[in-house]
Amino acid sequence: MADVISALEAIVGQDHVLTDASDLMSRDLDGRGSVGHSRAFVRPADAGQIAEILRFAAAAELRVIPQGARTGLVGAGAADDSGKMILLGLDRLNAAPYIDPPNRTATVEAGVPLSVLNAAAAEHGLFFPIDLGADPSVGGMIAANTGGARFLRYGDVRRNVLGLDVVLADREGTSLKLGGALWKDNSGLDLKQMLIGSSGALGIVTRATLALQPLPAVTVTALIALGDARSSEDLLLVLEDGCGSLLTAFEGLSPAAYEAALNHVPRLRRPFTAGKAKYYVLVELSAGKAFNAEQLQEILGETLSPWFEREGGILDVAVDLGDALWAIRHAVPEGLRSLGHVIGCDIALRRGDVSEFRERVGAEILLAFPDLILCDFGHIGDGGLHFNMVWPRHCGTLPTGLAEQARLRVFAAVVEHYQGSFSAEHGIGPRNQTYYDRWTPREVQRLAGHIQSAFAPALFGRVRFGEENRHARNQR
Amino acid sequence: MADVISALEAIVGQDHVLTDASDLMSRDLDGRGSVGHSRAFVRPADAGQIAEILRFAAAAELRVIPQGARTGLVGAGAADDSGKMILLGLDRLNAAPYIDPPNRTATVEAGVPLSVLNAAAAEHGLFFPIDLGADPSVGGMIAANTGGARFLRYGDVRRNVLGLDVVLADREGTSLKLGGALWKDNSGLDLKQMLIGSSGALGIVTRATLALQPLPAVTVTALIALGDARSSEDLLLVLEDGCGSLLTAFEGLSPAAYEAALNHVPRLRRPFTAGKAKYYVLVELSAGKAFNAEQLQEILGETLSPWFEREGGILDVAVDLGDALWAIRHAVPEGLRSLGHVIGCDIALRRGDVSEFRERVGAEILLAFPDLILCDFGHIGDGGLHFNMVWPRHCGTLPTGLAEQARLRVFAAVVEHYQGSFSAEHGIGPRNQTYYDRWTPREVQRLAGHIQSAFAPALFGRVRFGEENRHARNQR
Repeated sequence: MADVISALEAIVGQDHVLTDASDLMSRDLDGRGSVGHSRAFVRPADAGQIAEILRFAAAAELRVIPQGARTGLVGAGAADDSGKMILLGLDRLNAAPYIDPPNRTATVEAGVPLSVLNAAAAEHGLFFPIDLGADPSVGGMIAANTGGARFLRYGDVRRNVLGLDVVLADREGTSLKLGGALWKDNSGLDLKQMLIGSSGALGIVTRATLALQPLPAVTVTALIALGDARSSEDLLLVLEDGCGSLLTAFEGLSPAAYEAALNHVPRLRRPFTAGKAKYYVLVELSAGKAFNAEQLQEILGETLSPWFEREGGILDVAVDLGDALWAIRHAVPEGLRSLGHVIGCDIALRRGDVSEFRERVGAEILLAFPDLILCDFGHIGDGGLHFNMVWPRHCGTLPTGLAEQARLRVFAAVVEHYQGSFSAEHGIGPRNQTYYDRWTPREVQRLAGHIQSAFAPALFGRVRFGEENRHARNQR
Repeated sequence: MADVISALEAIVGQDHVLTDASDLMSRDLDGRGSVGHSRAFVRPADAGQIAEILRFAAAAELRVIPQGARTGLVGAGAADDSGKMILLGLDRLNAAPYIDPPNRTATVEAGVPLSVLNAAAAEHGLFFPIDLGADPSVGGMIAANTGGARFLRYGDVRRNVLGLDVVLADREGTSLKLGGALWKDNSGLDLKQMLIGSSGALGIVTRATLALQPLPAVTVTALIALGDARSSEDLLLVLEDGCGSLLTAFEGLSPAAYEAALNHVPRLRRPFTAGKAKYYVLVELSAGKAFNAEQLQEILGETLSPWFEREGGILDVAVDLGDALWAIRHAVPEGLRSLGHVIGCDIALRRGDVSEFRERVGAEILLAFPDLILCDFGHIGDGGLHFNMVWPRHCGTLPTGLAEQARLRVFAAVVEHYQGSFSAEHGIGPRNQTYYDRWTPREVQRLAGHIQSAFAPALFGRVRFGEENRHARNQR
């Protein structure tokens, strides 16, 4: 063990290898809490040191786990309890982002937080259009292929990455440059796509070139209370038809999620008096400098006006030019945690299935687990739904196995009856590897395993995409 | 040979195997003319027959080349002269597209033409937003990852594919379903990305689920004559800043390309009298039902008005609500062919490099090849440039080797001095395989070769992405 530490110190310097339990405690967490226990936390300064660490780790039979800002929710960036894993912290790869305004791109190191990237881009009237509640590192966003609340207009990380610099987890620590600062390029297989959404199990992204978008000059949000949740699906189509590209978000909130935020997060203001709403929708329109707020409000008003008269239509609307309504939406996770123990399900459905799923599977869950509170919310404009359930405080300790049973029932319905996804935007990690194993066809696992082995023949990362990677892991 | 034919006939039926030279002649062409000579053209009815053909071909050591609508430009869908290649025509995979309006998706077979897909989508106010001059099949578009003229707003095919059904070129003809009708899905490695832009060399796409967009209700185009080509770069930024998502195209035309279209394509009307323009830009704004044409014209007018006074700014503008201005842009290839022998270069650059490249590399080309006419045009809003050169008719026969020399000089400048791409949107095929071999780093080729071997261990397709695939090919 002492040999391992001194070898790592020789690469990155003594100050950048942490081994004390007290130092490692915070590193062994992610956005959902404790995962396992790492043997050391190593902070390389650059891609060269990363390659050296990978070469050393391959020889020493240590498994390297790249770690970003620990905002992930599936445990992909944290160690297990084998005592054979070292965490590779990428926070020192944080040079100031290079913004290229004529090209509308940013070249940015993996350890840079999203907020820092966006502050640099904003100086040029630009932004990276992945909107998240958390503040992940760029490398973590790429490993997870995060989606967020403006997917409807801008897509996920994958759709906005132009180039990656990568160190492969092979015995040489091979460096590759995949893509570059080009919007359009078809000069070979697009290998960088395999790293995006790989949960950090194929290689280490050290730098990325990202597509930026013009920062909207004017934004209007509306929170809409609906008399019938199913109306949200028609409302989405009418807004897309009328407002086209101006529609930049369409979020849904169940009444329980909405009330949890407003009742438990004191800084929020209630936008209208509590009524008989069956569902809430947060709509955002954004536009460039050629528009002003009145024009957007007028467009929104005209598009919504027929919906006040309609059965199951609009009961109330609050309109806002700032972020007061977004604050309600973003406070939902905090509100749910105040309510009790949250059982999260990050699912994706065809957009037209969202309402039916909420009704049917919601009823099944309440029949099986009558004490749970259904608090779903999410990005229904793209079919992404955080089908979260809460075990309320007043019911005492969560019964053993209940969370797993409830989650399995939801996922089985999603995958087997709705051809949906059990991981819409959080990726794969130790927390959902078993669902991957269960629902990924053998032939797809076989191919994914080949690819993982080609990129990362050394022991590396927390996820195994195929049988052969499982084997490599069990050998340890 | 007779055995091969009867085996294929036993799979697809006698009517669907063509072997006569006269029948094969048109099949051995692509969008740029003759490629080679296939041994047979086989038309399977479905994925099951495709798997049978692949199994038979693997046993018989025949190489299978999938072929779409023959609009490709790099020869990836045509046979060579080895006599060992059979063409797999996918035109019978043409069931009516299934449009899912609430989900805004289409599920469509590989042989369906883009025009048929868009006609079906239009009935629901939707479209597949890849805008091309040609009418390729859906499968061909996926294999080439086509871009087109509205990339700026909607991206390429890759950004709009949600799911693929694939038959792998292994000895079993394994069928895989990769992704589905979900906008958001992060439940494993996104393997379908490897098929997109694979030039049909990794497997056969039989069906795809595609993201659709709301059909704009109103569109305004403007053709702008500029006093200085460099102004186009600032104009792009001002339009993006002002019009945001309403800007759906920003195309550039050199004076020679513009005049070639207008002088040689009789159906076109000249939008303004010939002047001293140094460059032309075609701008498109589109919006949903909440807008009308006057509003878009007003926004465009206000954004452009300061540019009339400016040095090097706007000399003339023509505005159109129909497709008269697009007709000029789309007629450029035809105009160039009337001028002489076209030497095409489908390159991509950082957007901010386009004007400098045109000036600098253009001057170098004219110095080396004084008889060539520079007729570049293209999608400068995304850095895509058809840096086309014409050997004029009055100069007689094109000297041997001149086209290759000129192209190599352009590509070397693109790749080595501008970190650009020698294939922006046409993909890789026999016509540019040597450029791939030359400019793709060894380590990237090695990894791409591993991936090609994992998907397609049998003899398959026209492109080799790695050394091992080259070896397999040379063995034949």
